[in-house]
Amino acid sequence: MSDRETVLFANIAFYTAFATRDVKAMEHLWADGDVVCIHPGWPPLQGREAVLASWRSILANPNAPNISCRGAIANVHGTTAVVTCMEMIASQGEGTQVLAATNVFIKPPGTKEWRMIHHHAGPAHIDPEKIEEEESQPMN
Amino acid sequence: MSDRETVLFANIAFYTAFATRDVKAMEHLWADGDVVCIHPGWPPLQGREAVLASWRSILANPNAPNISCRGAIANVHGTTAVVTCMEMIASQGEGTQVLAATNVFIKPPGTKEWRMIHHHAGPAHIDPEKIEEEESQPMN
Repeated sequence: MSDRETVLFANIAFYTAFATRDVKAMEHLWADGDVVCIHPGWPPLQGREAVLASWRSILANPNAPNISCRGAIANVHGTTAVVTCMEMIASQGEGTQVLAATNVFIKPPGTKEWRMIHHHAGPAHIDPEKIEEEESQPMN
Repeated sequence: MSDRETVLFANIAFYTAFATRDVKAMEHLWADGDVVCIHPGWPPLQGREAVLASWRSILANPNAPNISCRGAIANVHGTTAVVTCMEMIASQGEGTQVLAATNVFIKPPGTKEWRMIHHHAGPAHIDPEKIEEEESQPMN
């Protein structure tokens, strides 16, 4: 498998950990050291400790929204990859909101596994139905 | 100078090009190839052509807001660096809005210059006065 394919798998693993509230998988996915996370509307959180504390809090919240990822595209630059995708956020009684997300991964030296170093998600003014329609088109 | 310092200079060059409406500097700053730009609320723009077309449009707009960068932090991972910062957006009659931004740079093989491969900016719920106060504190 190409780097592009394996980093898209890592990106799916991130959203699966989010959707299934899997704290251990989320902890494994994030790299050690200088990582940053910008949740929608939040100021940037710096460092693994602060970032994982925020995820533990989000994943433990019974009112956390359902999330799924659409239209992921990966650009690989050596041992770093930037994945861009749309997040579909479904909150009870509030319909579906679309966010644009940037997820940056690295392959640490001596390893073959992509780990997340940066996540940034924020609102995108896109009709969720348009994205679902595009996803249902056959791939070229 | 360290990589951390030089990439922070590249980040300043990006905001200077934005603030001074310098199209040529903006074109030089963006890398060739697989680049992505997510303007606030926009869907992701893929590829140098689409990204630079958006910047030409923004920089030519006489109503484009004034922008400045605060609190930039760079995390360097080999020849890739992720800069996180706050953008202060001052629109006439609308006061100052704060955005959180992710700027990813690479040092292409055989070069010593950081070029931008990814920009993502979105609203952050932060009081602009708080940021200005923090900036006026002496650095540790």
